[in-house]
Amino acid sequence: MTLQHWRHLTEWPLTAAAAVFLVAYAWEVIGDLHGSQLAVAETVIWITWAVFLIDYFVCLALAPQRWRWFYTHLFDLAIVVLPMLRPLRLLRLVTILAILQRSAGAAFRGRVIVYVVGAGGLLIFTAALAALDAERGMPGAHIETFPQAVWWAFETISTVGYGDYVPVTEVGKLVAVGLMIGGIATLGIVTATLASWIVERVAQTEIDMRAATRGQIRELSKQISELKALLDEKSA
Amino acid sequence: MTLQHWRHLTEWPLTAAAAVFLVAYAWEVIGDLHGSQLAVAETVIWITWAVFLIDYFVCLALAPQRWRWFYTHLFDLAIVVLPMLRPLRLLRLVTILAILQRSAGAAFRGRVIVYVVGAGGLLIFTAALAALDAERGMPGAHIETFPQAVWWAFETISTVGYGDYVPVTEVGKLVAVGLMIGGIATLGIVTATLASWIVERVAQTEIDMRAATRGQIRELSKQISELKALLDEKSA
Amino acid sequence: MTLQHWRHLTEWPLTAAAAVFLVAYAWEVIGDLHGSQLAVAETVIWITWAVFLIDYFVCLALAPQRWRWFYTHLFDLAIVVLPMLRPLRLLRLVTILAILQRSAGAAFRGRVIVYVVGAGGLLIFTAALAALDAERGMPGAHIETFPQAVWWAFETISTVGYGDYVPVTEVGKLVAVGLMIGGIATLGIVTATLASWIVERVAQTEIDMRAATRGQIRELSKQISELKALLDEKSA
Amino acid sequence: MTLQHWRHLTEWPLTAAAAVFLVAYAWEVIGDLHGSQLAVAETVIWITWAVFLIDYFVCLALAPQRWRWFYTHLFDLAIVVLPMLRPLRLLRLVTILAILQRSAGAAFRGRVIVYVVGAGGLLIFTAALAALDAERGMPGAHIETFPQAVWWAFETISTVGYGDYVPVTEVGKLVAVGLMIGGIATLGIVTATLASWIVERVAQTEIDMRAATRGQIRELSKQISELKALLDEKSA
Repeated sequence: MTLQHWRHLTEWPLTAAAAVFLVAYAWEVIGDLHGSQLAVAETVIWITWAVFLIDYFVCLALAPQRWRWFYTHLFDLAIVVLPMLRPLRLLRLVTILAILQRSAGAAFRGRVIVYVVGAGGLLIFTAALAALDAERGMPGAHIETFPQAVWWAFETISTVGYGDYVPVTEVGKLVAVGLMIGGIATLGIVTATLASWIVERVAQTEIDMRAATRGQIRELSKQISELKALLDEKSA
Repeated sequence: MTLQHWRHLTEWPLTAAAAVFLVAYAWEVIGDLHGSQLAVAETVIWITWAVFLIDYFVCLALAPQRWRWFYTHLFDLAIVVLPMLRPLRLLRLVTILAILQRSAGAAFRGRVIVYVVGAGGLLIFTAALAALDAERGMPGAHIETFPQAVWWAFETISTVGYGDYVPVTEVGKLVAVGLMIGGIATLGIVTATLASWIVERVAQTEIDMRAATRGQIRELSKQISELKALLDEKSA
Repeated sequence: MTLQHWRHLTEWPLTAAAAVFLVAYAWEVIGDLHGSQLAVAETVIWITWAVFLIDYFVCLALAPQRWRWFYTHLFDLAIVVLPMLRPLRLLRLVTILAILQRSAGAAFRGRVIVYVVGAGGLLIFTAALAALDAERGMPGAHIETFPQAVWWAFETISTVGYGDYVPVTEVGKLVAVGLMIGGIATLGIVTATLASWIVERVAQTEIDMRAATRGQIRELSKQISELKALLDEKSA
Repeated sequence: MTLQHWRHLTEWPLTAAAAVFLVAYAWEVIGDLHGSQLAVAETVIWITWAVFLIDYFVCLALAPQRWRWFYTHLFDLAIVVLPMLRPLRLLRLVTILAILQRSAGAAFRGRVIVYVVGAGGLLIFTAALAALDAERGMPGAHIETFPQAVWWAFETISTVGYGDYVPVTEVGKLVAVGLMIGGIATLGIVTATLASWIVERVAQTEIDMRAATRGQIRELSKQISELKALLDEKSA
C-alpha cells in the first residue's frame, strides 16, 4: 500500500476522530465533569489521540524516504505528541481546519469567506475551551464559566481587549497569544479579500481600459498565422 | 403579479417602515419611556414588524419555486422572525443598510466611502440603542445613558476597548460581538479602498509601463485585418 | 484679482498663521497659563483665527459663482467657524495637514510615508493638546499633564487602549473618537502602501510573466505598419 | 581599502557583536544581576558598543564624500550614540533585523513571512527586556518578571491592550509606543502579503482572462518578423 492510498483511505476516519475529540473535550470542559463521566470523556480523548498516533507511524512507515518525510512533517509530529500535554490539546484543531479547507466551495473568494468564518468560529470555540480548562478555579482568575470564556475569546480575537476578563495562568496566556495571532491573521484575510474584490470592481468600470487578456493575444496570433498562410499560398 | 413587480412596488414603503421603526425604537430606548408613551412606541414597532412579516409571506406566495425561495432566503426569515425577541430588533438595521447601498452614488470608490460612513454610523447608533436597552438598570452595568452607550460603541468598533464601559448582560455582549465584527469589516473596507487607490496611483506614474489595454489590442487587430485586406486585393 | 491669484499669494502667510496658532495653543495648554501670559496666548490665537476668517470672506468675494463656492467649501466654513468653540480648535490642524501634503516629495509612495508620519505626529500632538485642555482639573479625570495626554493619544490611535487613561468629559471623548478614526485611517494607509509595494515586488520576480505594457504594444503596432508599407511598396 | 570592502569584511563580526550584545543584555535584565555578574554583563555590553562605534568611525573615514555620508547615515549615528542611554539600547535590535533580512530565503513572499515572524519575535523579546529593565522595582509598576513583560509585549503588539499590565515609567511608555508602531507595521505587512496572494489566486482561476504577458507579446513580435522576412524573400 502506498502513502497516497493510505492517506486517501484514512481521510474520513481521521476527520471523524477529530470531531469526536472536540465533542468529548467540550463535554469534559464545559460540563466540569467528575467521577465516571470524566473517565468516559478522558477515555474517548485518549482513543482519538491513539488513532492519530497510529496514523502518524503508518505514514512514516509507508513514506519512500523516511528521514525526509520526518523532517518535512515535524508539524504533524507536534500535533501528535503535544496533545499529551493537556493544555495543548487544542492543536488538534488544526486537523479540523484541514477538513474545512477541503469542504469549502469552488469559487476562490467564496472559499476564503467560508474558511474565515469556519476557522474563526472553531478558533474561538476551542480557545474558549482551553482557556476555561486552564483558568477555572485558579486563584485570581476571572474566567469561570463557558459563556465568559467565549466572550473573552471574542474580545481577544477582535483585539478590543476591554480587560474585564484577563487570563492569569501561564497556559491561559499562551492560549491568548494564539488567539491574538489568529485575530491578526483573520483581520488580514478579511481585508485582503475585500481589497481584491474592490480592485476588481474598480478595474471593471471601463471595459476598454481593462488589461489585455491572454485570450485576446491568442486571437491576434491566429490572425497573423492566417496572414502568413495567405502569403505562402500566393508564393506557391 | 410577479415577484419582481411586488418587490419593485414595496421598495419604498418598506424603506419607510424601517426608518419609522428606527425612530420609534430610538425614542423608546433613549427616552426610557413609561405608560402611554411606551405603549405608542411599542405599537409603532409592532406595526412596522407586521409590515415586514406581510411582505415576507407575499414574496413567498409569489415565488415560482416556493421551497427554493424559502431555502435561499433563510436570512430574510431570520430578519422577520428574530425581532420578536426584543434585543435582536437591531437586525432590522440590515433593511436600512440595503437602502443605503442603493442610494450611494455612481463611482464605485465614492460609493464605498458613502457606504462605510453610512453603515458605520447606523451600526454605532443601533448598537448603542440595543446595548442601552439591554444594560440599563442591570446590576453591575456601567452603560446607563445614551451618550455613554455611543461612546462605548465607538470604543468597541474601533477595537480600542479602554474597558471603562463593558457590557455585563448576555444581550449586551451579543451586541458587542456584532460591533466587533462590524469594526473588523469596516477596517478591512477602508484599507482595501485605500489600497486600490494607491495601487492605481503608483501604476499611473509611467504611462508606457502601464498594462496593455483591451482597446490597444483591438486597435492592433484592426491593423492586421487591413493588412489582410490589402493582400487579398493584390491576389485578386 | 482672481481667486487663484489670491490663493497663491496667501498660501505662505496662511501656513505661517496656522503654525503660529499651533505654537500659541500648545503654549497655553501645556503651560497651563494664567494672568497676562494667558491673555497674550489668547490674543495670538484670536488673531490667527481672524486671519483665516478674512481669507474665507475674500475667497467668497472673489469666487465667480458665489453660491456654488459656498456649497462646495462648507468644510472650509466649518474650519473657520468652529474654532470659536474652544475644544474644536484642533480643526485648524487640517490647514497644517494641507501644507504637509504639498511639501511631501515627488515619488508617490515616498510621499505617502512622509504624509502618514507627519499627519500621525500632528494628529497625536494636537489631540493630546485638546484632550489635556478639556480634561485637566475635571472631577474623575486621569489626564492631568501633557506627557500623560501624549501617552493616551498613542494608546488610542494604535487602538491598544489599556484603559489606564480614559477621557471622562464629553469634549475629551469627542477628541478620542477623532483619534480612533485617525488610527483606522493610518492603519489602512500603511497597509495599503505595503500592499502596493509587495504586489509590485512579487510581480517583478519573473520578467516574462509580467503584464504586457503599452510600450510593447506600440512597438508591435510599428512593426505591423512597416509590414503594410512594405506591401504597399511592392504593389506599386 | 574601500567602504564596500570594509562593509563586506565587517558584516559577520558586527552580526556576532549584535548577537553577543542581545545575549548579555537579556542575561543582565532577566537574571536581575548584582555584583560581579553585573560587572561582567555590563563590560560585554560596553565592548559590543565600542565595536559598533569603531565601525561607524571607520566607515566615516573611508567614505568618499564624508559630509554626504554623515547626512545620509544619521540613523546609523543614532544607533551608535543612543545606546549610551541605557533604555535605548534596544535600538541595537535594528542591526539584528538587518541580518534577518539577509538570511531570509529566495522567494519574495516566503521572505516576507520569515521576516515578519523573525522581526516580530525579536521585537517582542527586546521590548520585553527593555520594559522589564525600566519598570522593575518602580513604585506602582506592574511588570516585575520576564514572563509578565513578554505577555505585556504580546498584548501591546497585537493592540489588544487588556490593561492588566501597563508601563508607568517614561522609558516603559516609550518602549510601548515603539511596540505599537511595530504592531501596526506587522499587521500591515501580514495583510498586504495575504492581499497579494489572494489577488493572484483570484486572477488565476480563468487562464484566458489573465493579463497578457510580455512573453506572449515577444512571441507575437517574432511571428510578425517572420512575416516580414517572407515578404522580403518574395520581393527579392
